[in-house]
Amino acid sequence: MDIKTVKVGDIEIGGKPVIMAGPCSIEGESEFIEEAGYLYGRGIRLIRGEAYKPRTSPYTFQGLGEEGLKIIEEAKSLYDIYVVSEVMDPRDMEKVYDVCDIFQIGSRNMANYSLLKEVGRQRKPVLLKRGMSATVEEWLLAADYIAGGGNRDIILCERGIRTFETYTRNTLDLSVVPAVHELSRYPVIVDPSHGTGRREMIIPMSAAAIACGADGVMVEVHPHPAEALTDGEQSIDYAEFDKLLDKLDL
Amino acid sequence: MDIKTVKVGDIEIGGKPVIMAGPCSIEGESEFIEEAGYLYGRGIRLIRGEAYKPRTSPYTFQGLGEEGLKIIEEAKSLYDIYVVSEVMDPRDMEKVYDVCDIFQIGSRNMANYSLLKEVGRQRKPVLLKRGMSATVEEWLLAADYIAGGGNRDIILCERGIRTFETYTRNTLDLSVVPAVHELSRYPVIVDPSHGTGRREMIIPMSAAAIACGADGVMVEVHPHPAEALTDGEQSIDYAEFDKLLDKLDL
Amino acid sequence: MDIKTVKVGDIEIGGKPVIMAGPCSIEGESEFIEEAGYLYGRGIRLIRGEAYKPRTSPYTFQGLGEEGLKIIEEAKSLYDIYVVSEVMDPRDMEKVYDVCDIFQIGSRNMANYSLLKEVGRQRKPVLLKRGMSATVEEWLLAADYIAGGGNRDIILCERGIRTFETYTRNTLDLSVVPAVHELSRYPVIVDPSHGTGRREMIIPMSAAAIACGADGVMVEVHPHPAEALTDGEQSIDYAEFDKLLDKLDL
Amino acid sequence: MDIKTVKVGDIEIGGKPVIMAGPCSIEGESEFIEEAGYLYGRGIRLIRGEAYKPRTSPYTFQGLGEEGLKIIEEAKSLYDIYVVSEVMDPRDMEKVYDVCDIFQIGSRNMANYSLLKEVGRQRKPVLLKRGMSATVEEWLLAADYIAGGGNRDIILCERGIRTFETYTRNTLDLSVVPAVHELSRYPVIVDPSHGTGRREMIIPMSAAAIACGADGVMVEVHPHPAEALTDGEQSIDYAEFDKLLDKLDL
Repeated sequence: MDIKTVKVGDIEIGGKPVIMAGPCSIEGESEFIEEAGYLYGRGIRLIRGEAYKPRTSPYTFQGLGEEGLKIIEEAKSLYDIYVVSEVMDPRDMEKVYDVCDIFQIGSRNMANYSLLKEVGRQRKPVLLKRGMSATVEEWLLAADYIAGGGNRDIILCERGIRTFETYTRNTLDLSVVPAVHELSRYPVIVDPSHGTGRREMIIPMSAAAIACGADGVMVEVHPHPAEALTDGEQSIDYAEFDKLLDKLDL
Repeated sequence: MDIKTVKVGDIEIGGKPVIMAGPCSIEGESEFIEEAGYLYGRGIRLIRGEAYKPRTSPYTFQGLGEEGLKIIEEAKSLYDIYVVSEVMDPRDMEKVYDVCDIFQIGSRNMANYSLLKEVGRQRKPVLLKRGMSATVEEWLLAADYIAGGGNRDIILCERGIRTFETYTRNTLDLSVVPAVHELSRYPVIVDPSHGTGRREMIIPMSAAAIACGADGVMVEVHPHPAEALTDGEQSIDYAEFDKLLDKLDL
Repeated sequence: MDIKTVKVGDIEIGGKPVIMAGPCSIEGESEFIEEAGYLYGRGIRLIRGEAYKPRTSPYTFQGLGEEGLKIIEEAKSLYDIYVVSEVMDPRDMEKVYDVCDIFQIGSRNMANYSLLKEVGRQRKPVLLKRGMSATVEEWLLAADYIAGGGNRDIILCERGIRTFETYTRNTLDLSVVPAVHELSRYPVIVDPSHGTGRREMIIPMSAAAIACGADGVMVEVHPHPAEALTDGEQSIDYAEFDKLLDKLDL
Repeated sequence: MDIKTVKVGDIEIGGKPVIMAGPCSIEGESEFIEEAGYLYGRGIRLIRGEAYKPRTSPYTFQGLGEEGLKIIEEAKSLYDIYVVSEVMDPRDMEKVYDVCDIFQIGSRNMANYSLLKEVGRQRKPVLLKRGMSATVEEWLLAADYIAGGGNRDIILCERGIRTFETYTRNTLDLSVVPAVHELSRYPVIVDPSHGTGRREMIIPMSAAAIACGADGVMVEVHPHPAEALTDGEQSIDYAEFDKLLDKLDL
């Protein structure tokens, strides 16, 4: 089917492939501002950065919360960027609404129907990650929960599914790219960072995603991945990100 | 480890195995009252029944909502029963609190950390279902999100995981029963209805659950399974439920 | 359906549940003779012991081969026992035929159709393990490859499937017990040793298997599991095996 | 690591990506000769075609066997081609040896160690398909069984793994391409036909495979896919194959 483009300011998702990049979570003001500046300088205007961070363990860093939202606001005042950020709780919607340009629904919440309905009532784009063990059909039905509220600006995001394989963190399922385009009008983005959990796979798997028709990639970039508070092993540094840009040549 | 018993009124979960039974969802006033009466007559005082019903598709029956809560209240005024019912949205907590005796967190919401924290703040028992593709470790960490709020009355519930097998709806993983008892102090209940999706497997798999040490079973019972609005193919009728009681002989 | 009993000498499989026990692999003459004597003394006459041992890694112990077959012969001359042993190569059939009473087809070879056809030509019982990721339907079709050669003395054996769970070696899928009995006339045995990979789960999961209708269990027993050449972590010692017998009380 | 190229006549696998193509199974003399001629005319000299065909069900077409080998011989006498064909039984090796240029070990036999050792004794290249639920580590250990016999001309082939997803026949795991190149020196080929089971995905997934560094693709081509005796739904016709060649532009 024809892809329905989703507009984020003056950027269109669903036409020429896009690159979304940024740290896994927002770790501090200077860190995020600095990275946003670097990315903006490289032509990237869709920045990821999570203020609310769903973590499997309650004993690990949970994100900066409202403080993170303020940091996003400040970065946006400095650069002409749009920010993708996760919303985890329908009660946070009001706070997040003014700051974020794309609401991310994380894979753990793909079937959190209360949250899906809440973003469905908003009038801003939603990036809906596939659940860890969701079928394509269930993923599209989750999108229908959002669309049912009148919000049709939905971007799907493949981030790997859970299998028995242990070398990679998840199994990136690129065949969903043609599947989603066959079955729906939604653009689909690929996240090779969560999808593989391995830094050295980000460039090849990003290239593969674009080659099979993905509408973009979302990658985790961190100036010093080894020191990242979350997901450092799947983040690339600036030098590697430059190589990615060269390789994709979008 | 020694199991920490969870008290629901005068009933203890975590000692002698218990049976929780009821319809998948509450379909109407007379239907639920009638079934509660039947179950109470058979000695069952832990009744399941969902007012809020998470459904994969937005196009199917979504539960009666607040009307369902009123029906639960009425049933409780008639019989000395306790009701297990799902809470899907932290904003519903106040309404649900007065009516339900055990809050159920469904498998789709096992990693909905906002909701887990919210039930962690309450002072009523929580039945935490395992996520469709959650490891035992992740499940126990989800329980820690609840316990972190001060609510330690947690009952775990195995309801099958997702595999490649298609004959059963899910793959019931009974080995989690000894695993949970080895790794935690939580009682663990088995749901063979969702775990297999097949009516004829409910009796044998309930017996297996008890045999390997489960603290109870939760089964879907419907007077006319073929007419159930949800999950009829995995519900047993009254005659079959009587056979289950005979077989388990608790 | 009615179960077709399989006769092994004067023992029937498919009626009263049976216990098959023995070491994972035959490690030496005195070790196997000694264990066979112990098991025979406890009333166990279906002894497992592999001379040919399929191993994931070519760098680990591969079984004693023909020497192992001689050890089986000697044990059989001392005790009135029947031995279940794996055949991996159709070219070994002649050698194995005279010694083994039940041919085991391991899970790795469930879809080795040349081997299935070869055992189908023999006139001795076959124990067909489920493949690591085989559906029930594929498993039954594999049995049909054997039956197609005229050998209908087939015993199925569930030994766990591969999932994302890592706490257990595999996920023991007990719901196949009622499934196999619904869909075929074959008896089905459960192997909790391979199915869980954890010694402490063997007793509870054996009890669960019998409770849901399994026609028997096959367990790995080793006098000193910590010193076993293969699979020690999933073998129980003699004291634990005595407890298993008490628990099952067949 | 540097890739060890595998020579098949004057063709090298492990340098510039290659295309292997042909019907799933050899269905008849004129059919195979005709298709080999078409492919040869398009510059394809690595032709797939199975004489021995492993089938899940014993009730479906099992391949032409020795007759198929004769057809391969005839095609080779007409065109300067090399043929990849499956060997399923170590006892067939002698017959297959003279005819095939690359022995294929199918996914069902990845852990058939007797067969692996037998091809390890040969001095012709082996294409080793990944098992349906094999980890990368197990796949590489299976390759070590072959290499242990002195045959180091091993080509790995990813053909999809089994997951809960049902829209595709299997889940094509392209992240194994960088993984295999990181962990071994073997070239790795991708089979999008079996990997997805869907004709319309062959072009995009082939492009993705090459983009992430695969050493080639193996695709099923049939003049009239709807009439194919095996796997027609995952075969492309000549017109589609021409488009694939244009797209890959190797």
